[in-house]
Amino acid sequence: MSIESLTAQLRDFAQDRDWEQFHSPKNLTMALSGEAGELLSLFQWLREEQLGEWFNEPPNRTAVEHEMADVFGYLLRLADVLDVDLEAALRAKIDLNEQKYPVELARGNALKYTVLAGRGAAGGQPRTHP
Amino acid sequence: MSIESLTAQLRDFAQDRDWEQFHSPKNLTMALSGEAGELLSLFQWLREEQLGEWFNEPPNRTAVEHEMADVFGYLLRLADVLDVDLEAALRAKIDLNEQKYPVELARGNALKYTVLAGRGAAGGQPRTHP
Amino acid sequence: MSIESLTAQLRDFAQDRDWEQFHSPKNLTMALSGEAGELLSLFQWLREEQLGEWFNEPPNRTAVEHEMADVFGYLLRLADVLDVDLEAALRAKIDLNEQKYPVELARGNALKYTVLAGRGAAGGQPRTHP
Amino acid sequence: MSIESLTAQLRDFAQDRDWEQFHSPKNLTMALSGEAGELLSLFQWLREEQLGEWFNEPPNRTAVEHEMADVFGYLLRLADVLDVDLEAALRAKIDLNEQKYPVELARGNALKYTVLAGRGAAGGQPRTHP
Repeated sequence: MSIESLTAQLRDFAQDRDWEQFHSPKNLTMALSGEAGELLSLFQWLREEQLGEWFNEPPNRTAVEHEMADVFGYLLRLADVLDVDLEAALRAKIDLNEQKYPVELARGNALKYTVLAGRGAAGGQPRTHP
Repeated sequence: MSIESLTAQLRDFAQDRDWEQFHSPKNLTMALSGEAGELLSLFQWLREEQLGEWFNEPPNRTAVEHEMADVFGYLLRLADVLDVDLEAALRAKIDLNEQKYPVELARGNALKYTVLAGRGAAGGQPRTHP
Repeated sequence: MSIESLTAQLRDFAQDRDWEQFHSPKNLTMALSGEAGELLSLFQWLREEQLGEWFNEPPNRTAVEHEMADVFGYLLRLADVLDVDLEAALRAKIDLNEQKYPVELARGNALKYTVLAGRGAAGGQPRTHP
Repeated sequence: MSIESLTAQLRDFAQDRDWEQFHSPKNLTMALSGEAGELLSLFQWLREEQLGEWFNEPPNRTAVEHEMADVFGYLLRLADVLDVDLEAALRAKIDLNEQKYPVELARGNALKYTVLAGRGAAGGQPRTHP
């Protein structure tokens, strides 16, 4: 199964280089967030309407794929180090979000669930999920 | 296969709520990075040596799993919207890193590949990969 | 006053290059977060006890100062674009934190204020402020 | 001077609570990045054209100001702990950017300086500064 085999490949990569000493959970969250920041930096000055054309340039697509791969790699390393089943964790989170964002209330808006449930601040800042 | 089925589940979740309008690549990189920041905030004041005990408390483990799931979910959404094969992208990046970080040079240090190859700044700040 | 003069200098820099078109609040939050990620990447593999020596190497100090300057610069640009008085905002936030973290309750621990006030989750994950 | 007095106020706040033990440079970069992520999360689902109206709602403006204050506060704490003169660092970075982004080359585009100087990848991904 792909998540497991990628996880094993990344673990071997780290072991071969004696890099497990660097891969504490804390350090890995930093690396993950740093790579997410690299991804941001690729998109930050693009207008929505020019993004498609930009992404069709092969070096740009490659740059994005590399940063996404880095984020994914560190996420898998973190899950491995913490013994978290990432697939199960995501399925559990989707179930939770099904409850927090019922279709009939959430359709077409980006209000946070505390606002949807009438527990949030007036003014209803669009916030998390979508 | 798990990545594909999770991707499909997340796509359905968004479609059911008419949330695809929010899921531009740019917005998704922001959401991904925001969730990575949530993950950071869970670990930021912990000393390395207290992390294990802290993580064994079930509410703490659950909090970490939720944030990791959020990062994973947005990464899969982004890959779906951009039509990126995340698994292939990660395998390609690992291949590249095999070349950038040969075992014999990289073992036990966290120097950036430009330093390893003698092209980097003197002083050799530990930096990316591991 | 320094915040004002730095803000004016950054505004001139952007105007001279016709870059104000890129500096929407949304784009600036992305740039700010990307630079914060660069800062993370400098520290991510360092152990606490080796940090001092590392930072004493001039190229390392310079790298850190550059990233901190980038974060500061984008924060000032964002404040300028949104017409936010950053100094007043910080003073107001400190006042708020004085109430959320009374000295007698907060001393020596990193518990989130919702936990301090008995409203938080059991298990009390160390979290925000300090 | 405002940066100095804010820095002193934040130092006192930490000292009064015996929180300096948490404020290692590494931890502070994590906190800074986490708060930058909070800022992202406020803007992530907003379209550029609805941002002004959204920001005019007082609770939304307050939320943004709080997150900007948090970023600023952690940046000042980090500068204090590392003994970095943030104002001098920013002025030095602006000088450097004046050289990397000459007005005549940089006007109206967001190309990275390595591209401007003909040293960058073909395809010229818009990237950093502006």
